Amino acid sequence: MIITLTTDFGLADAYAGVIKGVILGANPEATLVDISHNIAPQDVRGAAFLLHISHGFFPPGTVHLAVVDPGVGASRLPIALVTPNATFVAPDNGLLSYVAGDRLTSTSPHTRDHLTPAALPSGFKAVHLNKPRYWRQPVSRTFHARDVFAPVAAQLSLGTPLEDLGEPISSILAFPVPRPQRQVDGSMIGHVQHIDAFGNLITDVREEDLEKGRLAVDIAGRRISGLSMSYAEGKDLLAIVGSSGYLEIALRDGSAARILTALVGDSFTLRFE
Amino acid sequence: MIITLTTDFGLADAYAGVIKGVILGANPEATLVDISHNIAPQDVRGAAFLLHISHGFFPPGTVHLAVVDPGVGASRLPIALVTPNATFVAPDNGLLSYVAGDRLTSTSPHTRDHLTPAALPSGFKAVHLNKPRYWRQPVSRTFHARDVFAPVAAQLSLGTPLEDLGEPISSILAFPVPRPQRQVDGSMIGHVQHIDAFGNLITDVREEDLEKGRLAVDIAGRRISGLSMSYAEGKDLLAIVGSSGYLEIALRDGSAARILTALVGDSFTLRFE
Amino acid sequence: MIITLTTDFGLADAYAGVIKGVILGANPEATLVDISHNIAPQDVRGAAFLLHISHGFFPPGTVHLAVVDPGVGASRLPIALVTPNATFVAPDNGLLSYVAGDRLTSTSPHTRDHLTPAALPSGFKAVHLNKPRYWRQPVSRTFHARDVFAPVAAQLSLGTPLEDLGEPISSILAFPVPRPQRQVDGSMIGHVQHIDAFGNLITDVREEDLEKGRLAVDIAGRRISGLSMSYAEGKDLLAIVGSSGYLEIALRDGSAARILTALVGDSFTLRFE
Repeated sequence: MIITLTTDFGLADAYAGVIKGVILGANPEATLVDISHNIAPQDVRGAAFLLHISHGFFPPGTVHLAVVDPGVGASRLPIALVTPNATFVAPDNGLLSYVAGDRLTSTSPHTRDHLTPAALPSGFKAVHLNKPRYWRQPVSRTFHARDVFAPVAAQLSLGTPLEDLGEPISSILAFPVPRPQRQVDGSMIGHVQHIDAFGNLITDVREEDLEKGRLAVDIAGRRISGLSMSYAEGKDLLAIVGSSGYLEIALRDGSAARILTALVGDSFTLRFE
Repeated sequence: MIITLTTDFGLADAYAGVIKGVILGANPEATLVDISHNIAPQDVRGAAFLLHISHGFFPPGTVHLAVVDPGVGASRLPIALVTPNATFVAPDNGLLSYVAGDRLTSTSPHTRDHLTPAALPSGFKAVHLNKPRYWRQPVSRTFHARDVFAPVAAQLSLGTPLEDLGEPISSILAFPVPRPQRQVDGSMIGHVQHIDAFGNLITDVREEDLEKGRLAVDIAGRRISGLSMSYAEGKDLLAIVGSSGYLEIALRDGSAARILTALVGDSFTLRFE
Repeated sequence: MIITLTTDFGLADAYAGVIKGVILGANPEATLVDISHNIAPQDVRGAAFLLHISHGFFPPGTVHLAVVDPGVGASRLPIALVTPNATFVAPDNGLLSYVAGDRLTSTSPHTRDHLTPAALPSGFKAVHLNKPRYWRQPVSRTFHARDVFAPVAAQLSLGTPLEDLGEPISSILAFPVPRPQRQVDGSMIGHVQHIDAFGNLITDVREEDLEKGRLAVDIAGRRISGLSMSYAEGKDLLAIVGSSGYLEIALRDGSAARILTALVGDSFTLRFE
């Protein structure tokens, strides 16, 4: 059984290794896969996005352990969520906003960080992890990934039923997932959702949002015309449908983010001419 | 059988991957777990601390391979150490100072880097690895992790007795482990032992060192009052007992190290009012 | 069966994790080992060198998946190469220049990046991966590591014959591997081939290139005399035969690259006095 790990622990400390030790102590047969430990500190949204675009590529039943947890030891709840395809273990702080159904959406950057209870879609189940007998004791104040989330993820990988691990809940906290905003003049305002290590800007414009006509993107005073079929096409900035189905702004053999000094949350205009 | 890896090899080169290839060639069933490959180059003390706080979270019998080895190919000895709970393979350069018993202690930063032979506690066994038939041949001058330590770790994970791998030794080299210093006025001088990637300062003050009364920490011209119960408590610098049982100085959603321009070895004053 | 991964995806994104999910979906028994995901973006030569010095330390039959792929989705071919000891899956863009036989050599930095078809040595087999039924569908435009290379690597690890995966080809594209240049005065011009994270300069001078007499290296206005037997020898710059059989320029407890402001491709003079 696969357990994936997504955290902001970095790789210089022992934190990621320690949670692997705890998991393997409970389930020596677990196969551990790092999604990323280099989420920016406390960047819940960044981790939520990576979970969103990665979990579909793992076999059904994979357990995804995600811990970006600035509220550790405070009032946020530890939860587990089972969807038709995957299982997630995380703090209830927005980390599962995308994977819990992607139905809360926002076209305004101002509401992006606002957490709201989101009812679970049909076929989804969640519990508040409140059974300390499944945890490592004593539970520390600062490292619930080790003491609560990792032991629970190991239990789920061993087949322990979700219901044994906590009380059922019918909603989880989610922030609105960004979506492009259609304008009265037919254009669209899109947003940068993620910037990858190559400097590619992954936007919130989905392939199915693209309309007929030649694409024109206006971003940071630059104009990109047409949709490219590969990063190697063209010599300058280009727009391309990336591997997660979102429109990307990229630069051949370079970093679009650097040349545009772009940040997550930046908006741009899209036209179809 | 789990083998953990703690090195200063970084992740940009092939060094960490190569030692995994060597281990898996000898023991295809080994489960490999990275503690960290991002120890600062030649930072023996940093690696020793990570081993200290992480090894207890792995199942008994786990083999911990640790290589921060500025003296590779020179006179330092390759050793293996078996404690009641774990097995370590490392150069004899202080890397096992904490895990070998934690009995040499120092309240002065000036003696911190001084290596002294430390007798092994009862129940501990160590050998000088001097049986080349268990090594990869030819042995390079610069990469004993690959040619000596990894093959020996693989042998230990396969159940080869410690005694077969080298000559017994009764002491290893250790530096004094930092400890807070009690002052005549009842206060305590503590030290920063480690700074993690979040910028939390992990000190040498243990939970059991804390006395009755309200805690007051004076560090870098700042005063922290009281002990927090979570990182999310308060808006400024805070003191909290961290996940390894040491007092930590932290900053909510920020880096205490940056705001205090703190370094490992820095001292601070603790009072109980 | 081991599958190694060498990419420029970095560790902040989900890309490396996703290809592991795809591989484990097809072959749950695969043992995955990262060589490096921190190749500099688009640095095909750097990745080729790491494959060169690492693949020999893995058990025979290991599948090495290497993806540094600035031409993804454009005209470069996806290929697989089987050598007497190992199997490689990569884009045909020079990544396998060293491992395909090391017979194209260059003593001039000016031809270093020039790709030329190189006939495969006897005992080597390669195919153009052109059987979409073994790929993940739909194939994205930007992430063939996930959709083409990872599925094929999984198939190879499961024992699918090379011939099933594509059409045989008799040559692959390779850049000339750097080699030192002998001068009429008996000296030799060597080149920096790789700089590791310690700042050691790994040159293209092999142990067998060294002649009798005391070695003298002139580099960046500095003179190094004699060959050292360990990094701990001497207090300044030193020359040593490193763990891959190449002459290295190193600095005790420091970075030779920093002190010499050295870059890959830099040349230096070697004399035997």
